[in-house]
Amino acid sequence: MLSFENDYSEGAHPLILQAFLDTNFVQQPGYGEDEYTKSAREKIRAACLCPQADVYFLAGGTQTNAVVLSALLDSTEGVAAVNTGHIAVHEAGAIEFTGHKVLPLPERDGKMDAGDLQRLLSDFYADPTHPHMVWPGAVYISHPTEYGSLYSLRELEQLKAVCAEYGIPLFLDGARLGYGLQSPETDVTLPDLARLCDAFSIGGTKVGALCGEAVVFPKGEPRRFLTHIKQRGALTAKGRVLGVQFDTLFTDGLYFSISRHAIEMAEKLKQGFAARGFRFFRPSPTNQQFVVLENEQMKRLEEQVRFSYWQPLDETHSVVRFATSWATRPEDIDALMAILDAL
Amino acid sequence: MLSFENDYSEGAHPLILQAFLDTNFVQQPGYGEDEYTKSAREKIRAACLCPQADVYFLAGGTQTNAVVLSALLDSTEGVAAVNTGHIAVHEAGAIEFTGHKVLPLPERDGKMDAGDLQRLLSDFYADPTHPHMVWPGAVYISHPTEYGSLYSLRELEQLKAVCAEYGIPLFLDGARLGYGLQSPETDVTLPDLARLCDAFSIGGTKVGALCGEAVVFPKGEPRRFLTHIKQRGALTAKGRVLGVQFDTLFTDGLYFSISRHAIEMAEKLKQGFAARGFRFFRPSPTNQQFVVLENEQMKRLEEQVRFSYWQPLDETHSVVRFATSWATRPEDIDALMAILDAL
Amino acid sequence: MLSFENDYSEGAHPLILQAFLDTNFVQQPGYGEDEYTKSAREKIRAACLCPQADVYFLAGGTQTNAVVLSALLDSTEGVAAVNTGHIAVHEAGAIEFTGHKVLPLPERDGKMDAGDLQRLLSDFYADPTHPHMVWPGAVYISHPTEYGSLYSLRELEQLKAVCAEYGIPLFLDGARLGYGLQSPETDVTLPDLARLCDAFSIGGTKVGALCGEAVVFPKGEPRRFLTHIKQRGALTAKGRVLGVQFDTLFTDGLYFSISRHAIEMAEKLKQGFAARGFRFFRPSPTNQQFVVLENEQMKRLEEQVRFSYWQPLDETHSVVRFATSWATRPEDIDALMAILDAL
Amino acid sequence: MLSFENDYSEGAHPLILQAFLDTNFVQQPGYGEDEYTKSAREKIRAACLCPQADVYFLAGGTQTNAVVLSALLDSTEGVAAVNTGHIAVHEAGAIEFTGHKVLPLPERDGKMDAGDLQRLLSDFYADPTHPHMVWPGAVYISHPTEYGSLYSLRELEQLKAVCAEYGIPLFLDGARLGYGLQSPETDVTLPDLARLCDAFSIGGTKVGALCGEAVVFPKGEPRRFLTHIKQRGALTAKGRVLGVQFDTLFTDGLYFSISRHAIEMAEKLKQGFAARGFRFFRPSPTNQQFVVLENEQMKRLEEQVRFSYWQPLDETHSVVRFATSWATRPEDIDALMAILDAL
Repeated sequence: MLSFENDYSEGAHPLILQAFLDTNFVQQPGYGEDEYTKSAREKIRAACLCPQADVYFLAGGTQTNAVVLSALLDSTEGVAAVNTGHIAVHEAGAIEFTGHKVLPLPERDGKMDAGDLQRLLSDFYADPTHPHMVWPGAVYISHPTEYGSLYSLRELEQLKAVCAEYGIPLFLDGARLGYGLQSPETDVTLPDLARLCDAFSIGGTKVGALCGEAVVFPKGEPRRFLTHIKQRGALTAKGRVLGVQFDTLFTDGLYFSISRHAIEMAEKLKQGFAARGFRFFRPSPTNQQFVVLENEQMKRLEEQVRFSYWQPLDETHSVVRFATSWATRPEDIDALMAILDAL
Repeated sequence: MLSFENDYSEGAHPLILQAFLDTNFVQQPGYGEDEYTKSAREKIRAACLCPQADVYFLAGGTQTNAVVLSALLDSTEGVAAVNTGHIAVHEAGAIEFTGHKVLPLPERDGKMDAGDLQRLLSDFYADPTHPHMVWPGAVYISHPTEYGSLYSLRELEQLKAVCAEYGIPLFLDGARLGYGLQSPETDVTLPDLARLCDAFSIGGTKVGALCGEAVVFPKGEPRRFLTHIKQRGALTAKGRVLGVQFDTLFTDGLYFSISRHAIEMAEKLKQGFAARGFRFFRPSPTNQQFVVLENEQMKRLEEQVRFSYWQPLDETHSVVRFATSWATRPEDIDALMAILDAL
Repeated sequence: MLSFENDYSEGAHPLILQAFLDTNFVQQPGYGEDEYTKSAREKIRAACLCPQADVYFLAGGTQTNAVVLSALLDSTEGVAAVNTGHIAVHEAGAIEFTGHKVLPLPERDGKMDAGDLQRLLSDFYADPTHPHMVWPGAVYISHPTEYGSLYSLRELEQLKAVCAEYGIPLFLDGARLGYGLQSPETDVTLPDLARLCDAFSIGGTKVGALCGEAVVFPKGEPRRFLTHIKQRGALTAKGRVLGVQFDTLFTDGLYFSISRHAIEMAEKLKQGFAARGFRFFRPSPTNQQFVVLENEQMKRLEEQVRFSYWQPLDETHSVVRFATSWATRPEDIDALMAILDAL
Repeated sequence: MLSFENDYSEGAHPLILQAFLDTNFVQQPGYGEDEYTKSAREKIRAACLCPQADVYFLAGGTQTNAVVLSALLDSTEGVAAVNTGHIAVHEAGAIEFTGHKVLPLPERDGKMDAGDLQRLLSDFYADPTHPHMVWPGAVYISHPTEYGSLYSLRELEQLKAVCAEYGIPLFLDGARLGYGLQSPETDVTLPDLARLCDAFSIGGTKVGALCGEAVVFPKGEPRRFLTHIKQRGALTAKGRVLGVQFDTLFTDGLYFSISRHAIEMAEKLKQGFAARGFRFFRPSPTNQQFVVLENEQMKRLEEQVRFSYWQPLDETHSVVRFATSWATRPEDIDALMAILDAL
């Protein structure tokens, strides 16, 4: 069945599979000491215009968030995140399992507002009982957010300014980073992230890889980060598996070109829905589109195409998500529209 | 440079890469709900003669040990393991990070002795202060062990009998399980493990896969095991990546035939060393061979071939490890022998 | 300086000190096996009309919350609490340190609303992705709350009904329980709590003891609760210290009579403020009174008497807290009123 | 029944109870801000000849070990201890619960040998795979040890030298410190400990207090130590309870004089046993004496006097412990000897 359920329904971009074939019998050391990992690291540094960055490769997104944050935080500290953030809702308490509280802030179109963060921090330090409270020790944002929205460069700079004022690191979860960087509506570039973040991830799983997230520490890695990775069960014996994939993704701009394709497909999909009079729950400039369906309509549609149920809107309507990806073909969108027309 | 450094120096068995190519554009749901994972699960159940087993797929070995053990243990409990066990030494405290003590027992040729375990448990319950101590809540063994040794069926039955007497689960770490099951010196089969263990892993990373360990719970999984996996950052979004690999490994006995090949290569290597008068640190019936080298000899050898330094033996000799794998070719052994002859 | 800063500014009720003197040289076993602990346990069971209850004694409040909740929860679970709850704000992340998320609900006059709880639970189970989320595994409420408010019997029954429907335990933090039970405005008794709660604490530290909280499990204790206590560093070697105190507090109704005194003092204080035209931030039927002061007034007042700053109200006013206790004397209130009159 | 079961069978030294009476109605702030705590802190600094030391007061011993060690360690680190150490055996995994491994070393008369520690550390750093292992991050010793033995000044200096070489802190658990400092066989003083340790505790619970351990950081406390205390549920609301006790213990050398008395009683007990031909399991210069009893003899004796069973010696003999304390009277020893004579 045709699926727009998510951006990880297929395997990997064919160039990645080809790279596995090409390198398969070259013997390499384990644990990230292989030449593909080294090459991928260099290419990411170059793409970030940040030659001194420390770069690691981990297998998955929740793992990345938990390993990075638990390495950034000391045990008195928690991490600020909006209440719809992935770490706040959909990681089964992975952050708390490492002993740290997620300090909730209201979401503003899925994003964290610098003013809200400023208030959290100034209120904390103003409170005479704050040594009896969890210290805010890091800030977590995602880009794109859970709702597909994007921070503007100005918004990121404001968040960074607050973090800098209080001396706490800014971590950006880029599980779908490619789709954010290639949106026509963004003014944020990879070098901007390297300048503004203390740590950020570049998602591979949802952007053409079989698995894998790159983690970039533009100002240097947390102490003994390799041991943190190992201790959380996140050190890949065959590090080459991640190295080969990111080396391919960062060769000839593949990561960016396949992301741009997904955005173009999302644009086509958005126009198709709009032309048929559908409403959007929120505007999204990236590859996730949140469409309002009448409940009966939704039931009939899901017999013919896969998408994600998101949340109820009112008594008779629901919000659903359609995601495009590097693998979406124009004819898939056309097929979806034909189904809509026939409903 | 020719390498016998470990059994994860290459990529994956070619049939696995072919399977990735064949399935790449078939859309599948995420998180282990894909059809390849379902098929792999069924094939493993069949190979274990255990149709009711719960089977999961995780990315790596330390991750598997930590997720399974922390799901089996309640927070008052620790896990018994020999003091050379992987979880006791080489996992950076991953078990302790989940809050559980590793209760050390002496190693006997790398293995746990049922008598030692019996003593630990009976002493614990005999001690009137035991509510002030860590409760032994599970037993961890590896097969093959860190020293390549194997439990006999009788030894496993004895361990199981002690576990059953005290009502605690037996977990077997099978990171190199194929190499153990295909040793000519073993009398243990996969169905034996399904009968005797409460949980065991079937390692893919070191036996032909890019990554991945299957976890089998022959008597049923721990409550909410999926949430445990997610919480530890171990849930793979593209579950198909693990499913495709184990589906391939358990088709037409591939897992066993490639393991047998590695054992034959180890036998050839062993004979080559023996014929040249080298001593072995300990006898090993599996794919890891522990050879004694004179220190000067070792230095010259490592200029031409890669192997693992293991430990010092005496002032002038060291123990080193040569590992074969599914990917070792007979001509690689010949090349090694030629190098030895020329030293 | 005269102090209404809190309800733990003095030592212990004189009868407790006398009991220490009387028992000092009687040799007793440690770790809660002493006769005073046994006697206190029986008296608490009797006061709860719950002869089968398991009763333990711990040293402090945060400790009690963390030990009880971490023993009630399995590692996939979190605890629901209102966002002003003590465990959510003022315990420095003690719950998260044990690996569990505090699931926030809105406060309603400091209390949890059964409808809000019902919604949290039904939404959780309705969400198809809930295995990727923290499972609600217990409910935490305090009585009196952080704002001095009290649950009615009906509200407690409603909360219990929701808990029962979903099979999760209800834990009531009674750090100031005496002051709640003796309020003229309550219809809740100790036997009601034993009937409705799965666990609750009876605070001693703030109600006449040097230190100590009793924990009551009316339906039986969590498995190996003693080991949980020991593991969290909360097992008192000289258990008699807690036993003697609670034995005294539950002899001849001392716990209740000294609590009633504090409530009478709070009533006198409340009337004094009201008669002088002061506003209250929220009505409180217990020993904590939240008064609105003009900021300049507040500054002058704090030169002569100690109270707690609570929160800003508006540009020119603040909320402050005056607490009475078992030790407050009528003449202390008179002295405070004289100071107010002279301001 | 006459008891030598332990050194915490009675309440508190009468001067401590008197101090509670004297200070009971003086209003004081909570959480260690009271004047008694401040005074106790100053007196301990003076006794240590270490005016810049940070000093805290906690309620119990296991709590103290867990709070101090988890504050000293980062999450990649474990703590070295001998395999009979209290944290290794009798704290129910309290250290592992905070996420840290206890790295075991052999006990030598209950003590850690500097050579063994040196070997652990040098082997660790020599191992090329050490980033995959738990980093040794602190050293834990107790003084007196579990077997009543004492480090000489030279032994402590040697341990300190190894710690200094590797840059890791030395923590000394002084749950029975007074009895160690007052042994006629020691050459170690409190100022020596302040010079050689990075942290040490001064036990009150077993040396005359109702409860309480002082923690001394001669070179400064770990960052945000107060929050660590709070987060572990170890912050005492009525800090005065601990302050009053330690203020009394460190007035006019009470801590030392009552410890000396216990040692004199132990000497009398030792001579009594020796004169009657009993053997000692190990020589002990402090208040715990380990005596060998024939099993039948042991059974008859325990009908008339309480002592602690320690461990079996051989088929027909057992090791038992007799402890004296600040509260032991000469006539108690005489009574014990009369019982022995009558056996």
